[in-house]
Amino acid sequence: MAKGLKKREEDFSSWYNELVSKADLAEHSDVRGCMIIKPYGFAIWENMKAELDRMFKETGHQNAYFPLFIPKSYLSKEADHVEGFAKECAVVTHYRLKNAEDGSGVVVDPEAKLEEELVVRPTSETIIWNSYKNWIQSYRDLPILINQWANVVRWEMRTRLFLRTAEFLWQEGHTAHATKQEAVEETEKMLDVYADFAENFMAMPVLKGVKTENERFAGALETYCIEALMQDGKALQAGTSHFLGQNFAKAFDVTFADSNGKSQHVWATSWGVSTRLMGALIMTHSDDLGLVLPPKLAPIHVAIVPIYKGSEQLAQISKVANLLVDRLQKRNIKVKFDNDDKRKPGWKFAEYEMKGVPLRVAIGPRDLENGTVEVARRDTLEKKSINQDDLEETVVSLLEEIQSNLYDKAALFSKENTSEADSIEELQNILDQKGGFVLAHWDGTKDSELKIKEKTKATIRCILLNAKQESGKCVYSGKPSAKRVVFARAY
Amino acid sequence: MAKGLKKREEDFSSWYNELVSKADLAEHSDVRGCMIIKPYGFAIWENMKAELDRMFKETGHQNAYFPLFIPKSYLSKEADHVEGFAKECAVVTHYRLKNAEDGSGVVVDPEAKLEEELVVRPTSETIIWNSYKNWIQSYRDLPILINQWANVVRWEMRTRLFLRTAEFLWQEGHTAHATKQEAVEETEKMLDVYADFAENFMAMPVLKGVKTENERFAGALETYCIEALMQDGKALQAGTSHFLGQNFAKAFDVTFADSNGKSQHVWATSWGVSTRLMGALIMTHSDDLGLVLPPKLAPIHVAIVPIYKGSEQLAQISKVANLLVDRLQKRNIKVKFDNDDKRKPGWKFAEYEMKGVPLRVAIGPRDLENGTVEVARRDTLEKKSINQDDLEETVVSLLEEIQSNLYDKAALFSKENTSEADSIEELQNILDQKGGFVLAHWDGTKDSELKIKEKTKATIRCILLNAKQESGKCVYSGKPSAKRVVFARAY
Repeated sequence: MAKGLKKREEDFSSWYNELVSKADLAEHSDVRGCMIIKPYGFAIWENMKAELDRMFKETGHQNAYFPLFIPKSYLSKEADHVEGFAKECAVVTHYRLKNAEDGSGVVVDPEAKLEEELVVRPTSETIIWNSYKNWIQSYRDLPILINQWANVVRWEMRTRLFLRTAEFLWQEGHTAHATKQEAVEETEKMLDVYADFAENFMAMPVLKGVKTENERFAGALETYCIEALMQDGKALQAGTSHFLGQNFAKAFDVTFADSNGKSQHVWATSWGVSTRLMGALIMTHSDDLGLVLPPKLAPIHVAIVPIYKGSEQLAQISKVANLLVDRLQKRNIKVKFDNDDKRKPGWKFAEYEMKGVPLRVAIGPRDLENGTVEVARRDTLEKKSINQDDLEETVVSLLEEIQSNLYDKAALFSKENTSEADSIEELQNILDQKGGFVLAHWDGTKDSELKIKEKTKATIRCILLNAKQESGKCVYSGKPSAKRVVFARAY
Repeated sequence: MAKGLKKREEDFSSWYNELVSKADLAEHSDVRGCMIIKPYGFAIWENMKAELDRMFKETGHQNAYFPLFIPKSYLSKEADHVEGFAKECAVVTHYRLKNAEDGSGVVVDPEAKLEEELVVRPTSETIIWNSYKNWIQSYRDLPILINQWANVVRWEMRTRLFLRTAEFLWQEGHTAHATKQEAVEETEKMLDVYADFAENFMAMPVLKGVKTENERFAGALETYCIEALMQDGKALQAGTSHFLGQNFAKAFDVTFADSNGKSQHVWATSWGVSTRLMGALIMTHSDDLGLVLPPKLAPIHVAIVPIYKGSEQLAQISKVANLLVDRLQKRNIKVKFDNDDKRKPGWKFAEYEMKGVPLRVAIGPRDLENGTVEVARRDTLEKKSINQDDLEETVVSLLEEIQSNLYDKAALFSKENTSEADSIEELQNILDQKGGFVLAHWDGTKDSELKIKEKTKATIRCILLNAKQESGKCVYSGKPSAKRVVFARAY
């Protein structure tokens, strides 16, 4: 393992980059903006994916797969959508390379130009609704509840691992409904699924709300979102669920015969979370020693490290450790016994700290005599010696405790960093000095929203679903407002 | 469900296309060569993926993710590789669209031309070995055992769903080793994993062998493969495992310090299977009524169909059916109770036959009186009435029986359609009249191989790993040969 990290307080951004690298989560590739997700990082993503996939299936969704490429003209069919997505994207113009005449390698074959350029999907509404057109005739064909796990590409000039990359991995749900009400219910249901996942698996408290018109998904009538607060006081949009109305049905001419035989346009939703959640997970819990992982998403729950001198002692310890491994595995604990003789225990301790393994168990010669082991928590760094017989019970209960402790800590942080501001100066002061979520009145106009953004670099993260009604005045215009909205600087 | 299929005997190719469509597995998209995998088809692929992923992890591999795009110049670094892969591929030349000046939509922004074109990965050896260069310094960093689940693109003019598509889904393992022996062992181990999966999950017997030099993967020193026989007598390559020697390590300058501190090039393997396996699965077991699925890969094991008149009878049957569902689910049986009132039982019977659901359970009013149900097997179409109390035991044992029956049937077919030929005329006759695998002598030269292919349209599918030594004469050249090789016409 490499040396320590920058401190979060000194330079949060460098801390993040170093952590992603030193915990072996991801790295930049030579291809501009594209990341390589390394095995340890990918194992965390796989755990996220497995839980989300289970939740989607439990709510009646099925997976499917649609093409990577979208004909350029499809993007133009929904007017707002093309404005939002068609611009910065990877364009395939040719389908063949040939040997360069000077022998220097391969060049694009000018004769293999596509009639219509293909765009690498930045999101799949257009190609999917073009298919739904053929799948939907009658109300009997509805609802369609489909999800896709896929890679998507949005060309980005300034990238950060997991947070903003040209290619990223995500899931995109695309559903079709007979009524507006059903589509709105679906949009809200999937927001709840995301919030449930964020809070109960990522141990990350989130605000649930809707975006302002200005911040909506291109083509949506309403964008619901979950917003989380990172340790540097900046907000991060962790998931979105869009009520698309009949926009895509109209753009792609998707109608159905209702039970009276009348033709109607179909109602749509789409919803997604991405590898960005990895960034959120890291920035919510981790500390200056490295990654801190909630047990429910950790690839390894327990790392067992032997403390020994010489191969004979290692053999004695291994005998006990292997029994402990078996016993823990029977309780569905993911355990790694690290008997690598090339590394010293101190190196291993630092390594598992950096990688955020929730529990470390050390076994030395004294432990063999006493029938004990030393258990160390990653979150609080507390250590205690326990009887080997109590190991499974201790581990199971500590993992639960760590999971809820991480949530509580993050919830307290979020609470302590949520303020109210009644003037634009106050808003700005809070943002400059402490950051966090700031609740303030806003008059509901795009003009005020943009002016506040210009002045404070903060955006309206969301209008809370459970916002309390409270008369006030817009911090920018002084015009009346019926409730506060959530401002923050954001990723 | 739509009307029946063409018969296999009449037109195997149309039968296949109709089955893929009517069993709701996949369809062509508007994007040339790209398929849409529909939910039912995707559920089968997900089951395949889950088992393979488990097998990869049990043999020590980890998943990771590498970029979709490969800089054009990377493909040229390995001489054979560029010949094999750089030619027919999707080329990204621009990263931005803009509004057309005439308002007609969007056009490629000529100012957003990439300095170096990017190729959508046809396979990932080059981008991965370019990364391994930074990951490997010492023998302590080896082996690297990584797998990636990904989409890849190889431009194809003539496409068939699952069998040959421009975009397809696959997994690609890429491993790095300190010694030649270890790399060869890995190559062979993964071939065994594929054969194990094909035989024990897909119920599809396979031949294990190596390809001739002419049929090798571009950049490999040896390509191992599994070959299966389809019901029309054509062979299908179902998986390949490549021993890459030091070719990619040399092309990307990947060296390691061995335990004596001496610098050496790393040894490599790569191995993959794709959504092509879906085509193999379909063509191995299905019949004129539709898909036939081995229970181990079926998304639904049991479909329960109520036979009733009126809602009261449906309610009575549902009460019993729901109890049966619970009991079956407790035994990990995937069961669907189809109480859809809009469809008649006859329609449902045909639907589940078309979709290859291994067992159908029908419950009518008489069954309620007698405490019975009717169980029908998809593979043999046999029906029997059994006591409701015996349902779980019957289902569990029938599913096992179906799994092994499908294998036995396919193995018998494969055996009956494996012949020997001692002259090129005999080879041609067998291929024309009966098809299948034909064992014949070959002198080991590329010239004879190509001449035989030209004459018979058959390729050497593989040189069997367990080929028996037998002196003979090449069916083309008459030159001496030490063993027979496997010829077939192939997908």
